[in-house]
Amino acid sequence: MKKQLIILVCLITLPVIAQSQQPGRGMPEIVSPEINQDHTVTFRLIAPNAKEVMISGDWMPSQGWSPGSTAMVRDEKGTWTFTSGVLPSELYSYFFLVDGLRCMDPNNVYMIRDVATVTNIFLVGGGQADLYAVNDVPHGTVARRWYDSPGTDKVRRITVYTPPGYEKGNDKYPVLYLLHGMGGDEEAWLTLGRTAQILDNLIARGKALPMIVVMPNGNVAQEAAPGESDAGLYKPSFQVPNTMDGKMEETFPDIIRFTENNYRVQKNKAGRAIAGLSMGGYHTLHISRYYPGTFDYIGLFSAAIMPNEKADSKVYADLDATLARQKANGYKLYWIGIGKTDFLYKAVSDYRTKLDRMGMPYQYRESEGGHTWANWRIYLSELVQLLFN
Amino acid sequence: MKKQLIILVCLITLPVIAQSQQPGRGMPEIVSPEINQDHTVTFRLIAPNAKEVMISGDWMPSQGWSPGSTAMVRDEKGTWTFTSGVLPSELYSYFFLVDGLRCMDPNNVYMIRDVATVTNIFLVGGGQADLYAVNDVPHGTVARRWYDSPGTDKVRRITVYTPPGYEKGNDKYPVLYLLHGMGGDEEAWLTLGRTAQILDNLIARGKALPMIVVMPNGNVAQEAAPGESDAGLYKPSFQVPNTMDGKMEETFPDIIRFTENNYRVQKNKAGRAIAGLSMGGYHTLHISRYYPGTFDYIGLFSAAIMPNEKADSKVYADLDATLARQKANGYKLYWIGIGKTDFLYKAVSDYRTKLDRMGMPYQYRESEGGHTWANWRIYLSELVQLLFN
Repeated sequence: MKKQLIILVCLITLPVIAQSQQPGRGMPEIVSPEINQDHTVTFRLIAPNAKEVMISGDWMPSQGWSPGSTAMVRDEKGTWTFTSGVLPSELYSYFFLVDGLRCMDPNNVYMIRDVATVTNIFLVGGGQADLYAVNDVPHGTVARRWYDSPGTDKVRRITVYTPPGYEKGNDKYPVLYLLHGMGGDEEAWLTLGRTAQILDNLIARGKALPMIVVMPNGNVAQEAAPGESDAGLYKPSFQVPNTMDGKMEETFPDIIRFTENNYRVQKNKAGRAIAGLSMGGYHTLHISRYYPGTFDYIGLFSAAIMPNEKADSKVYADLDATLARQKANGYKLYWIGIGKTDFLYKAVSDYRTKLDRMGMPYQYRESEGGHTWANWRIYLSELVQLLFN
Repeated sequence: MKKQLIILVCLITLPVIAQSQQPGRGMPEIVSPEINQDHTVTFRLIAPNAKEVMISGDWMPSQGWSPGSTAMVRDEKGTWTFTSGVLPSELYSYFFLVDGLRCMDPNNVYMIRDVATVTNIFLVGGGQADLYAVNDVPHGTVARRWYDSPGTDKVRRITVYTPPGYEKGNDKYPVLYLLHGMGGDEEAWLTLGRTAQILDNLIARGKALPMIVVMPNGNVAQEAAPGESDAGLYKPSFQVPNTMDGKMEETFPDIIRFTENNYRVQKNKAGRAIAGLSMGGYHTLHISRYYPGTFDYIGLFSAAIMPNEKADSKVYADLDATLARQKANGYKLYWIGIGKTDFLYKAVSDYRTKLDRMGMPYQYRESEGGHTWANWRIYLSELVQLLFN
């Protein structure tokens, strides 16, 4: 009995010991980040041997292309601390620079990968970011599946959100096809975009109708996100071949076919929406006019609107004529969102001028900020409330 | 047209610039880790200001409770390098210690959380770890769902693997219930355990039958893994209340009911297996004898076998009588695996003696090593080949 008690004690204390030995052998346990009552946030790092510790957070004003950063303050024991000002409700990301070396916060296990970099994240609630939190509401299902794509001659990975209640009953659901930007993949809208939380929360509040959200991988050269295909655990890169050459648009019917053959969905224009950010906005623009009788709802988020005459694809031929056909076929909502400081602002303005000239109606949303996931989460939150009504 | 070209260039180069500025402003792009042809592995870190950089890897001999570590070598430009010896095929984890501070490898986006710590990972192929890689074979679906658990008065998150082909056809599948250890959750078997890859690969080789794998959260006080419930993004801890007090075992029928009501499964003893590691082995032992007509296949991986008289639960009463009933009811396989240096070795030996005395047949697998995920992945790979034949 005594021996077994010792085993029990070992079992319980083993990883606690192992854990407390890094990073601060013998150092007290700390919490970082700590969201304070007043919505300031305190960060802590035990690094007694460091000469300079900076924190870089996405709420700090950036310096040119460089994200902003600020110095942390060392106490006599070697714990570095920084407390932010009051932060508006949002999902934030940050990392430390320890004597110039980019380090994750060893006390924060919550991280998101964006292309080839990983940052720690935290949530400040009490506002917009309550939509990004997991709340005590009914939750949908998130499935990672693989679909046949004869158009790309591949079997490809895809993420599907089905709303709470989908598995019970026989209702047919509308579908939002949601496309990522350059460097992203079928994980991006779920991790950086908090899609499952946004949908769960808005459906629970009665602000969005239950819908299925299909998040494909828009890089037709890939079978799946980095680490999720037989290409192995390679270093991801922003540039993947064949991202904006028409192949994604051409092979999009493979994704619709998979969805409509595998889910209880409304198989008509009124039951289909498509939206995307940046490159995904470009894909959305072209897919929705190339298949002009397919979608009643179109959302362009910071869309990378640019000519692509070099791409040898029939998809990009007859832009004006196909837009005119899309207009003639009719749609319920053409939604365009862009940040005031987005580097694509001018391109989107020019596109709006074109639509104005053609008399193609659209709803326009201009937000603060630039080409950021903060904006795309806001746009998604707003768009889904307008769908399928 | 010119302006649009500039936009295109910006769009493509923006994150590349942003990325190359950290960590080594102006430093060349490096690859780390690099798996060399001869199965040595080279690690690199740009840290010109560091005085000492160590690497700690789970293949290094540990020192007491501390994981092993070794010094990296600095070149004149401040890049630190270490090349391992030849490593057997395995999934490995590591981290850096930069002047004593635990740091992730900023060039490796592949990470796994184990309770409250995150480590980088890499795979050395050409052997056992080929089962842990995503290969060009048919892939199953992985779904994160929520199930009603009246027994715990909660709606709880659960991970379900369905094999390739499940969505087509009308076959009924057998089910493996797969339980994690202390500090784990419904993500553990998928991330640390590589369950989806092991099943995909063994099914493709014809070595395992297509089966559904249900991975619940064994901490009845939790609704979901850290970060996945309305408890928010808190710091995870190894000790969660009510993990070994009978409640998991008592409420296990909620999980079976969910599975059998939601999936096309064989609803009989011959179609049910249960296995678990450490605390999950303890749960498996007790669930399988407490519901003695339920499972034909039982797997104990490094099981935390210990008395629990303090727990005020009927689950732990009549251990011997219920084991005898389990024996009388019959089962096809009782599989016990343990590493030679596992701190639970003696407890498992004592349990085997007990089974021997009772004449309860079991299959015993003694491996090298201790209480590690390396062993649990091996045990899973071996067990699933024996199931449902």
